[in-house]
Parts: sequence; structure tokens; C-alpha cells
Amino acid sequence: MSLKGFQFSVVEAAVKKPGRKDLALIWSDTPAVAAAVFTTNAVKAAPVLLSMERIAGGRAQALVVNSGNANACTGSQGMADAREVTRLVAEGLGIDEHLVQVCSTGVIGVPLPMGRMRGALPGLLAGRGNATLDDLASAIMTTDTFPKTSIREGQIGGCSYTVVGTAKGAGMIMPNMATMLAYVLTDAAVDPEWLNGLFRAAVDRSFNAITIDGDTSTNDTCLLMANGAAGNQQIGPDSPDAGAFAAVLDDVLLDLAKQIVKDGEGATKFVEICITGAADDADAKRVALAVANSSLVKTAFYGQDANWGRIFCAVGYSGAQVDPNRLSLWFDDVCMAKHGVFAGGDAETQGTAVLKQKELRVTVDLGLGGGQATVYTSDLSHEYVSINADYRT
Amino acid sequence: MSLKGFQFSVVEAAVKKPGRKDLALIWSDTPAVAAAVFTTNAVKAAPVLLSMERIAGGRAQALVVNSGNANACTGSQGMADAREVTRLVAEGLGIDEHLVQVCSTGVIGVPLPMGRMRGALPGLLAGRGNATLDDLASAIMTTDTFPKTSIREGQIGGCSYTVVGTAKGAGMIMPNMATMLAYVLTDAAVDPEWLNGLFRAAVDRSFNAITIDGDTSTNDTCLLMANGAAGNQQIGPDSPDAGAFAAVLDDVLLDLAKQIVKDGEGATKFVEICITGAADDADAKRVALAVANSSLVKTAFYGQDANWGRIFCAVGYSGAQVDPNRLSLWFDDVCMAKHGVFAGGDAETQGTAVLKQKELRVTVDLGLGGGQATVYTSDLSHEYVSINADYRT
Repeated sequence: MSLKGFQFSVVEAAVKKPGRKDLALIWSDTPAVAAAVFTTNAVKAAPVLLSMERIAGGRAQALVVNSGNANACTGSQGMADAREVTRLVAEGLGIDEHLVQVCSTGVIGVPLPMGRMRGALPGLLAGRGNATLDDLASAIMTTDTFPKTSIREGQIGGCSYTVVGTAKGAGMIMPNMATMLAYVLTDAAVDPEWLNGLFRAAVDRSFNAITIDGDTSTNDTCLLMANGAAGNQQIGPDSPDAGAFAAVLDDVLLDLAKQIVKDGEGATKFVEICITGAADDADAKRVALAVANSSLVKTAFYGQDANWGRIFCAVGYSGAQVDPNRLSLWFDDVCMAKHGVFAGGDAETQGTAVLKQKELRVTVDLGLGGGQATVYTSDLSHEYVSINADYRT
Repeated sequence: MSLKGFQFSVVEAAVKKPGRKDLALIWSDTPAVAAAVFTTNAVKAAPVLLSMERIAGGRAQALVVNSGNANACTGSQGMADAREVTRLVAEGLGIDEHLVQVCSTGVIGVPLPMGRMRGALPGLLAGRGNATLDDLASAIMTTDTFPKTSIREGQIGGCSYTVVGTAKGAGMIMPNMATMLAYVLTDAAVDPEWLNGLFRAAVDRSFNAITIDGDTSTNDTCLLMANGAAGNQQIGPDSPDAGAFAAVLDDVLLDLAKQIVKDGEGATKFVEICITGAADDADAKRVALAVANSSLVKTAFYGQDANWGRIFCAVGYSGAQVDPNRLSLWFDDVCMAKHGVFAGGDAETQGTAVLKQKELRVTVDLGLGGGQATVYTSDLSHEYVSINADYRT
């Protein structure tokens, strides 16, 4: 990996059970510019509350993350445990505690096994550089079926830089194991304020545009670190390479977000929901999420049933401004309904053929204005029910 | 049936396919005081739009309803068809068209088979009195597995009256076959304005307090008719029997609503979600619906997993005012979590035992104020996915 100035480490702490490396460290040789987005859930896990407090400073040098336990709904003990983990990391690395971010993902409501965590931390810190991006991606997995990584390279003023990312899903909230986590690291030197804005816009188009089951976890965290080790002249909004850098960042986030959907619990299909012609973008997103989260729409995708009526029904209850007589709908390029009624002809046959594909695009035009939004989702399968009904047992 | 002054009729119109009686009539010997509540979905079926227009007059004498086709997303043709059906009914019965209500439930986006409807209507009108409440309940079924009826009797000033009801589910919206329909009929003479208020409050506590999958149909209709045939002196808010009458009405609606949940698509459990201690009642209902609609909570019920963390998570993203450290939770009388953390002891074992029951109550106390709400829901099973994935095929 050509990413400069970052090192990874993974060890087995047997957080939930022995047999896999479940504790990981991201380390930057120098304090990095950092930005983060956290869950909007009012019930936030202890590590989220602590990391929110820390990120206010705009810098981070280390991230410690465990899978197997979410440290959520654990009260004051949970806060004390999260603080102790970051204190031990800071002491071991000789840096300020405020530069340490912390994440947890796994079972809700069970205290962290602090004895095993304390025992594993020295090896984790000493092992810096012993792990690859794939090792890191594997360590943070819960019910994910494959590790998720993304790597892009670019140039700023002739100087090469790299952006890498990793993420875990696999529901928007995991079964009892909350959480979507994503980490994006770059060695580019970037104007902090500009980077923060770029990052939030990219998150809106990627991680905030995917949904598996509509649940929002207690632990969702997306963290970006930029340490400047590439040696480029700091890039900002007026740099000639600004647009290209923003596109690379967008690309990594969207790539990771799509991987999460493809690995959605029990998913058999990847569906892009495009809404056009809404009164405004916010209305378009409202409609896109209503369609993407409808159990009836999702089971129709699973059943390969070109059931456009269910989609219009979800559009209707989305809360967005809707004129039923202006609604039109396409599966890929097949028009299923025009101005509120069935398109006729061989739409049924052609639409059913599209539904048989593994990936498809559903476009709904509201015929009202210029508002647009795209959301990515999966279907709702027997397997989703199995995974979530049987998870803890 | 002791209900006076109402007659029913059912015939086979083969709306979707032959082999069952799928067209029904409710007839009152005299114009009845009427009130109705319709779907809030912006995409409303043609019969809903027409019935909304008609109910503004506050009176109805006949209702014609078909299953097998929702007459939704059918454009101007759908409106013309709904109008023609009511015109034929009004002409055949010699009453004003504005006294005829109309409902449809079934496939969305397909025009009504008007040829077969026209052919079946004369027999329907002529057959008044040939059908029982059970026949009516069966005629309006779609994927329902049993007909839903409820009958209660009472006295007003020594004069007996009856309230009967029927309803169909079986999702809040049915698969491609939209709709929750409910009809409540009484022979009591009731002050129209007072009845309208009573009815809306009763609907809020019953049909608006159940959810199977969170989808709101294009065709939902709940209609009440009171024809005064019992011969009582008109009852109003100041009558000595006012409270008892209101309780009977509440009882019939809640009984029907619970039957719909018990017959929810693929349901294996009936779950009462009680929220207490919310900032206000609206917040309590928001929390109750978020919990009841969470796919993760519903699959945990199905899996008989005492997974209280998922419930706290849903409470957290409900949008209501929430203090995570004040949340407490019970399965029946077993306290699972107190003030935000696991209750400890043998809560896990005892809670799991409750989850194995066919019916259970989940209580969440927010610890903030006096707001309360109760919602009834089912679990999310493999069978739900099967029904909805395979319905049209």
C-alpha cells in the first residue's frame, strides 16, 4: 500500500469469543487533520459520545476499535471503560488522550470485557505496522461476509497521494450488533475546513444514501484522517486539483457504501433508487428512502415481481409533495407507468426481465420540479429474517 | 343477528378470478348517519377519492365493495369506473348517488373488470338480506386467513341496540393488494356530531394503533353507519348512557383491529407495545410505532430473542425526546433494563421465557413525563417474506 505515514495493527482480544483478531489500531506518524460523522440516534454508545467530544479539536492520531461488543446501553461503566481504553492507548503511544478516537461494534447492553482488553492492548500498540488494510477490514467485521476496502490514487501539483478506506455493515444497524463503521485515510495535505465540508457532502451522497432495513444504529461512525505525509503543497478550494481530489474522496466513500449494501444481510439484489422531478432535493430523498425502506417493495424485489403499484404506494406515504397523476416509473430503461397509470404494451414482461437481474435501477419521476436524489438498497429475503431472528442464539 | 334495519348481499363477480363471492353490499333501510376515515397516502385509489367526496354530506345508505382489484393508480378511467358502479347501485336501489359509498381492495394498477361488475350488480342488489355478517366478512378478504367480525349489544334508556363490525387486513397495506377496510354498523340513534368525534377517537386507539409492516395503503377506509332502527331516543354527549355507548364502540373497533394484527401476514406473535413516561402522548406514539415497525425488533420477536438493545435503539431513532439514562424496559412483568442499562439477575432467562409466548407485552418507560401510547403489532417471519415475494406469481 502506497499510503504514507499510517500504520495498522490487529490482535485477538477475544472480546466476544476467541478465535479471531477483533481489536485494531490505526496510527498516524503525526497528528492528522480529522473529521467525523456520528449516528443521529439519541441512544449513542459510550465510544460515540467520547469520540464526538474528542473530534471537536479537529485532529486525531490514533483510532482503537473492537468488534464483538458495542459498549452501548452500558451506562456510566461504559463511559469509564471507553475512557480507560483511550487512556491506555495514549499512554502506550506517548500522545495526548484527546488525539485518540475509539469505536466499538457488537452486542448491545453488555459491558466490555475490560480484563481481556487490557491484556491485549500492549501487543496491539507494539504491533504497529504488522497489519494490512485487509487485516484491519477483517478485524472490524461482524456479520459482514467479506472485508470492505477501497484504494484510489491521485496527484496534487505533481505529487502523488493515496486515499484508502475500509467499512463494515451489514445492516444500517446490525442485529444486536449495532453499526456501520467507516474509516477513510489519506496522506494528502488538505485545508482542514475545506476537507470537513467535502467530507460531509461525500457522506451525504454515500453512507447517508444507503439503507438496508431503515434502522439507525447506536454506534455508526465515519472517520476521516488526513496526515499530509504525501508531501504535497496543502490543497484547498482554490487549488487547480481541488475538483479531482473531491472526486477521489467521493469515489472511495461511494465504493465503500455500495459494498455495504451488496453485503446487506441476506441481500440477493443491489437496487439503485433514483428520484427525479421532486419539488426539491429534500423531498426527493424522502421519497427515495420511503421506497427503499418499504418491506413490501423490498420483498417484491426479492420475488422478482415487477410490482410498480407498491412503489407508487410508498411514494404516496413518503410525506413529500406528490401529484399521483404526474408519477412515472422505470425499471432500468423500461417504462412501467406513465402519468400515474400502467404504461401498457409489453411493460410487464420487460419489467419482469429487469427484476430478474442482480443489479437494477428504479427511477421515479414526480413531474413537479428539479429535485433529485439517489439511494442504494437491497431486497428483503428469507435469509434476512434468518440472520436477525437467530443471531444471538 | 339482532342488528335492525341493515341488510347484506354478496355475489361472485369474478373480479380477479372465478370461484368466490367478491362483491358485497351493505344496505340500510333508511339513510344513516355516517362518518369515515380514509388513508393519508397521497396516492389514493379512485373509490377513496369518490367516497371522501360523498361522506362530506354526513349520510350514507349503501356501500358497495369489491375485493380482487384496488382500482388504484388507474387514472381517470378508474374514477369513471367508480362513479359508474355507484350510479348503477343508486339507480337499482332508487336512492341518491350521494348516499352510496364505494370501496375496492386488491391489485393496484389494473382497471376494474367493468363488464363482469355490471353483470353481477343486478343480482347483488336483488339479493339484499341473503347474506350474513360472516358472508360479508369473507367477501372482502384478500390474503386474510379468517373472516373478522365483532358484535356487541347495549341499552340506551332501556332500549336495546347492537353494534357490529367487520374488517380485513392483513398488512397495513396488503401486498400489491392494498388495504385495511373496516365497516362498523349500529342501529342506535346517535347525535351525528358527537358520533363523528367518538368514532375518530376510537379509530385512533384501534386502527391507527396497529401496524404490521409500516406501509400505509392507497385504499384504507373505515366507515361507520348509524341508522337509528333500534328506536332509542337519540343519544348524545349528555345522555346517561353516553359513556357506555362510547365503550361499546371502542370495544368493537379494538377487537377488529387486534384481529387484523393476529392475522398479520406471516404473524406468529401478537405484541402489545406500551410506552409510558414520554414528554407527551404524541412522542409516546412516535416511540411505539418506531419500535413496532423496526425490522430488527420484529425479527427478534420471531426468533424469541429477548433482545432489549434493539428496542432501545429503535426508541433512540424515533425522533421523540429521549434520555438514554432514563429508559427502562419490561417484557410482560420481567424488567429487562432499568435506567438505560441491563437489569441483571436472571432477566435474560425470564425475558426469554416471555418471548416464547404467543402473546406478550413490551413496556418502555421513558422517565420524562406523563405521555402514553399503546400500539399492537406482529413479528416479522419467513412466511411474511414468502407471502409478499410470491404474491402476484
